[in-house]
Amino acid sequence: MDCIFCRIAAGSLPATRILETDDVVAFRDLNPRAPTHVLVIPRLHRASLDALGADEAHLAGALLLATAEVARLEGVADSGYRVVANTGEEGGQTVDHLHFHVLGGRPLGWPPG
Amino acid sequence: MDCIFCRIAAGSLPATRILETDDVVAFRDLNPRAPTHVLVIPRLHRASLDALGADEAHLAGALLLATAEVARLEGVADSGYRVVANTGEEGGQTVDHLHFHVLGGRPLGWPPG
Repeated sequence: MDCIFCRIAAGSLPATRILETDDVVAFRDLNPRAPTHVLVIPRLHRASLDALGADEAHLAGALLLATAEVARLEGVADSGYRVVANTGEEGGQTVDHLHFHVLGGRPLGWPPG
Repeated sequence: MDCIFCRIAAGSLPATRILETDDVVAFRDLNPRAPTHVLVIPRLHRASLDALGADEAHLAGALLLATAEVARLEGVADSGYRVVANTGEEGGQTVDHLHFHVLGGRPLGWPPG
Protein backbone atom coordinates (compact mmCIF):
# COMPACT_ATOMS: atom_id res chain seq x y z
CA MET A 1 0.00 0.00 0.00
CA ASP A 2 2.25 2.74 -1.28
CA CYS A 3 -0.57 5.20 -1.86
CA ILE A 4 -0.63 7.82 0.90
CA PHE A 5 -4.36 8.41 0.49
CA CYS A 6 -5.06 4.68 0.79
CA ARG A 7 -3.04 4.78 4.02
CA ILE A 8 -5.02 7.76 5.30
CA ALA A 9 -8.28 5.98 4.41
CA ALA A 10 -7.10 2.89 6.27
CA GLY A 11 -6.03 4.96 9.29
CA SER A 12 -2.35 4.00 9.08
CA LEU A 13 -1.35 7.59 8.27
CA PRO A 14 -2.73 10.37 10.48
CA ALA A 15 -5.00 13.07 9.12
CA THR A 16 -7.48 15.53 10.56
CA ARG A 17 -10.71 13.86 9.56
CA ILE A 18 -13.83 15.88 8.88
CA LEU A 19 -16.21 13.18 7.65
CA GLU A 20 -16.26 9.43 7.10
CA THR A 21 -18.80 7.20 5.42
CA ASP A 22 -18.67 3.66 4.07
CA ASP A 23 -17.45 5.01 0.73
CA VAL A 24 -15.64 8.26 1.50
CA VAL A 25 -13.12 9.91 3.84
CA ALA A 26 -12.63 13.69 4.13
CA PHE A 27 -9.62 15.30 5.85
CA ARG A 28 -7.77 18.62 5.93
CA ASP A 29 -5.20 19.42 3.23
CA LEU A 30 -1.72 19.72 4.76
CA ASN A 31 -1.00 22.77 2.56
CA PRO A 32 -4.24 24.72 2.85
CA ARG A 33 -4.81 27.43 0.27
CA ALA A 34 -7.98 28.79 1.86
CA PRO A 35 -9.37 28.96 5.43
CA THR A 36 -11.33 25.80 4.60
CA HIS A 37 -9.35 23.34 2.49
CA VAL A 38 -10.49 19.75 2.80
CA LEU A 39 -9.83 16.72 0.60
CA VAL A 40 -12.54 14.16 -0.12
CA ILE A 41 -11.44 10.73 -1.33
CA PRO A 42 -13.02 7.36 -2.04
CA ARG A 43 -11.85 4.52 0.20
CA LEU A 44 -11.39 2.47 -2.96
CA HIS A 45 -8.24 3.29 -4.86
CA ARG A 46 -9.04 4.98 -8.15
CA ALA A 47 -6.15 6.84 -9.75
CA SER A 48 -8.21 9.77 -11.03
CA LEU A 49 -11.55 10.80 -12.49
CA ASP A 50 -10.37 9.22 -15.73
CA ALA A 51 -10.03 5.87 -13.97
CA LEU A 52 -13.67 5.70 -12.82
CA GLY A 53 -15.65 3.02 -14.60
CA ALA A 54 -18.88 3.72 -16.43
CA ASP A 55 -20.62 1.60 -13.77
CA GLU A 56 -19.28 3.69 -10.88
CA ALA A 57 -21.78 6.54 -10.95
CA HIS A 58 -22.88 5.73 -7.43
CA LEU A 59 -19.35 5.99 -6.04
CA ALA A 60 -18.74 9.20 -8.00
CA GLY A 61 -22.00 10.62 -6.67
CA ALA A 62 -21.20 9.68 -3.09
CA LEU A 63 -17.96 11.64 -3.40
CA LEU A 64 -19.73 14.68 -4.76
CA LEU A 65 -22.47 14.64 -2.13
CA ALA A 66 -19.72 14.37 0.49
CA THR A 67 -18.08 17.56 -0.79
CA ALA A 68 -21.34 19.44 -0.21
CA GLU A 69 -21.66 17.90 3.25
CA VAL A 70 -18.09 18.94 4.10
CA ALA A 71 -18.96 22.51 3.09
CA ARG A 72 -21.95 22.45 5.43
CA LEU A 73 -19.88 21.00 8.28
CA GLU A 74 -17.22 23.67 7.74
CA GLY A 75 -19.77 26.47 7.71
CA VAL A 76 -19.06 27.67 4.18
CA ALA A 77 -22.16 26.39 2.38
CA ASP A 78 -23.85 29.79 2.61
CA SER A 79 -20.83 32.03 1.97
CA GLY A 80 -19.75 29.84 -0.94
CA TYR A 81 -17.05 27.38 -1.87
CA ARG A 82 -15.26 25.75 -4.77
CA VAL A 83 -14.88 22.03 -5.47
CA VAL A 84 -11.90 21.05 -7.63
CA ALA A 85 -10.58 17.76 -9.01
CA ASN A 86 -7.25 17.66 -10.83
CA THR A 87 -6.46 14.93 -13.35
CA GLY A 88 -3.01 14.41 -14.82
CA GLU A 89 -0.02 16.70 -15.16
CA GLU A 90 -1.60 19.80 -16.74
CA GLY A 91 -4.48 19.48 -14.29
CA GLY A 92 -2.00 19.71 -11.41
CA GLN A 93 -2.69 16.30 -9.90
CA THR A 94 -0.04 15.51 -7.27
CA VAL A 95 -1.38 12.32 -5.63
CA ASP A 96 -2.58 9.53 -7.89
CA HIS A 97 -5.65 8.68 -5.83
CA LEU A 98 -8.84 10.46 -6.91
CA HIS A 99 -9.57 13.41 -4.61
CA PHE A 100 -11.71 16.51 -4.52
CA HIS A 101 -10.53 19.73 -2.98
CA VAL A 102 -13.17 21.74 -1.11
CA LEU A 103 -12.02 25.36 -0.71
CA GLY A 104 -13.89 28.13 1.08
CA GLY A 105 -13.73 30.89 3.65
CA ARG A 106 -12.39 33.49 1.21
CA PRO A 107 -13.45 34.76 -2.24
CA LEU A 108 -12.05 32.47 -4.93
CA GLY A 109 -10.84 34.18 -8.12
CA TRP A 110 -11.34 33.30 -11.77
CA PRO A 111 -9.95 31.55 -13.72
CA PRO A 112 -9.40 28.63 -11.34
CA GLY A 113 -5.70 28.31 -12.07
CA MET B 1 -38.05 29.06 -17.61
CA ASP B 2 -35.80 31.97 -16.73
CA CYS B 3 -32.74 29.82 -16.18
CA ILE B 4 -30.38 30.09 -19.15
CA PHE B 5 -28.92 26.63 -18.55
CA CYS B 6 -32.42 25.11 -18.49
CA ARG B 7 -32.99 26.81 -21.83
CA ILE B 8 -29.74 25.43 -23.23
CA ALA B 9 -30.66 21.95 -21.97
CA ALA B 10 -34.06 22.27 -23.64
CA GLY B 11 -32.50 23.50 -26.88
CA SER B 12 -34.25 26.87 -26.83
CA LEU B 13 -30.93 28.72 -26.40
CA PRO B 14 -28.07 27.79 -28.75
CA ALA B 15 -24.83 26.31 -27.48
CA THR B 16 -21.98 24.31 -28.95
CA ARG B 17 -22.80 20.90 -27.59
CA ILE B 18 -20.08 18.36 -26.88
CA LEU B 19 -22.08 15.56 -25.26
CA GLU B 20 -25.69 14.73 -24.40
CA THR B 21 -27.15 11.91 -22.35
CA ASP B 22 -30.54 11.37 -20.72
CA ASP B 23 -29.27 13.15 -17.60
CA VAL B 24 -26.59 15.54 -18.77
CA VAL B 25 -25.71 18.16 -21.41
CA ALA B 26 -22.16 19.46 -22.05
CA PHE B 27 -21.40 22.58 -24.09
CA ARG B 28 -18.60 25.10 -24.58
CA ASP B 29 -18.21 28.01 -22.15
CA LEU B 30 -18.82 31.33 -23.94
CA ASN B 31 -15.88 32.89 -22.07
CA PRO B 32 -13.27 30.15 -22.28
CA ARG B 33 -10.33 30.41 -19.89
CA ALA B 34 -8.39 27.50 -21.40
CA PRO B 35 -8.16 25.88 -24.86
CA THR B 36 -10.72 23.35 -23.63
CA HIS B 37 -13.42 24.90 -21.46
CA VAL B 38 -16.67 22.98 -21.38
CA LEU B 39 -19.61 23.14 -18.97
CA VAL B 40 -21.44 20.01 -17.86
CA ILE B 41 -24.94 20.42 -16.44
CA PRO B 42 -27.82 18.20 -15.34
CA ARG B 43 -30.97 18.51 -17.41
CA LEU B 44 -32.87 18.79 -14.13
CA HIS B 45 -32.65 22.19 -12.53
CA ARG B 46 -30.60 22.06 -9.34
CA ALA B 47 -29.36 25.43 -8.09
CA SER B 48 -25.95 24.18 -6.93
CA LEU B 49 -24.09 21.28 -5.35
CA ASP B 50 -25.67 22.36 -2.07
CA ALA B 51 -29.13 21.79 -3.57
CA LEU B 52 -28.54 18.12 -4.44
CA GLY B 53 -30.59 15.77 -2.32
CA ALA B 54 -29.05 12.92 -0.33
CA ASP B 55 -30.91 10.54 -2.68
CA GLU B 56 -29.36 12.07 -5.81
CA ALA B 57 -26.03 10.27 -5.81
CA HIS B 58 -26.80 8.72 -9.18
CA LEU B 59 -27.43 12.09 -10.83
CA ALA B 60 -24.33 13.55 -9.19
CA GLY B 61 -22.30 10.59 -10.41
CA ALA B 62 -23.65 10.85 -13.95
CA LEU B 63 -22.44 14.46 -14.00
CA LEU B 64 -18.99 13.53 -12.81
CA LEU B 65 -18.59 10.63 -15.23
CA ALA B 66 -19.66 13.01 -18.01
CA THR B 67 -16.84 15.43 -17.11
CA ALA B 68 -14.31 12.62 -17.63
CA GLU B 69 -15.97 11.68 -20.90
CA VAL B 70 -15.82 15.29 -22.10
CA ALA B 71 -12.08 15.34 -21.33
CA ARG B 72 -11.63 12.21 -23.45
CA LEU B 73 -13.70 13.66 -26.30
CA GLU B 74 -11.68 16.89 -26.15
CA GLY B 75 -8.37 15.02 -26.22
CA VAL B 76 -7.13 16.29 -22.84
CA ALA B 77 -7.56 13.14 -20.74
CA ASP B 78 -3.87 12.23 -21.15
CA SER B 79 -2.35 15.72 -20.91
CA GLY B 80 -4.52 16.53 -17.91
CA TYR B 81 -7.46 18.69 -16.96
CA ARG B 82 -9.25 20.31 -14.05
CA VAL B 83 -12.90 19.93 -13.05
CA VAL B 84 -14.38 22.80 -11.02
CA ALA B 85 -17.78 23.46 -9.47
CA ASN B 86 -18.51 26.83 -7.88
CA THR B 87 -21.16 27.21 -5.20
CA GLY B 88 -22.37 30.57 -3.94
CA GLU B 89 -20.80 34.00 -3.98
CA GLU B 90 -17.32 33.29 -2.58
CA GLY B 91 -17.13 30.22 -4.81
CA GLY B 92 -17.67 32.45 -7.84
CA GLN B 93 -20.93 30.88 -8.99
CA THR B 94 -22.48 33.07 -11.72
CA VAL B 95 -25.38 30.92 -12.99
CA ASP B 96 -27.68 29.33 -10.43
CA HIS B 97 -27.92 25.98 -12.19
CA LEU B 98 -25.40 23.37 -11.05
CA HIS B 99 -22.53 23.13 -13.53
CA PHE B 100 -19.04 21.70 -13.75
CA HIS B 101 -16.27 23.44 -15.63
CA VAL B 102 -13.86 21.15 -17.48
CA LEU B 103 -10.63 23.03 -18.27
CA GLY B 104 -7.65 21.66 -20.17
CA GLY B 105 -5.17 22.21 -22.96
CA ARG B 106 -2.79 24.30 -20.84
CA PRO B 107 -1.07 23.85 -17.47
CA LEU B 108 -3.44 24.94 -14.69
CA GLY B 109 -1.85 26.75 -11.76
CA TRP B 110 -2.32 26.39 -8.00
CA PRO B 111 -4.22 27.52 -6.01
CA PRO B 112 -7.34 27.21 -8.16
CA GLY B 113 -8.45 30.81 -7.67
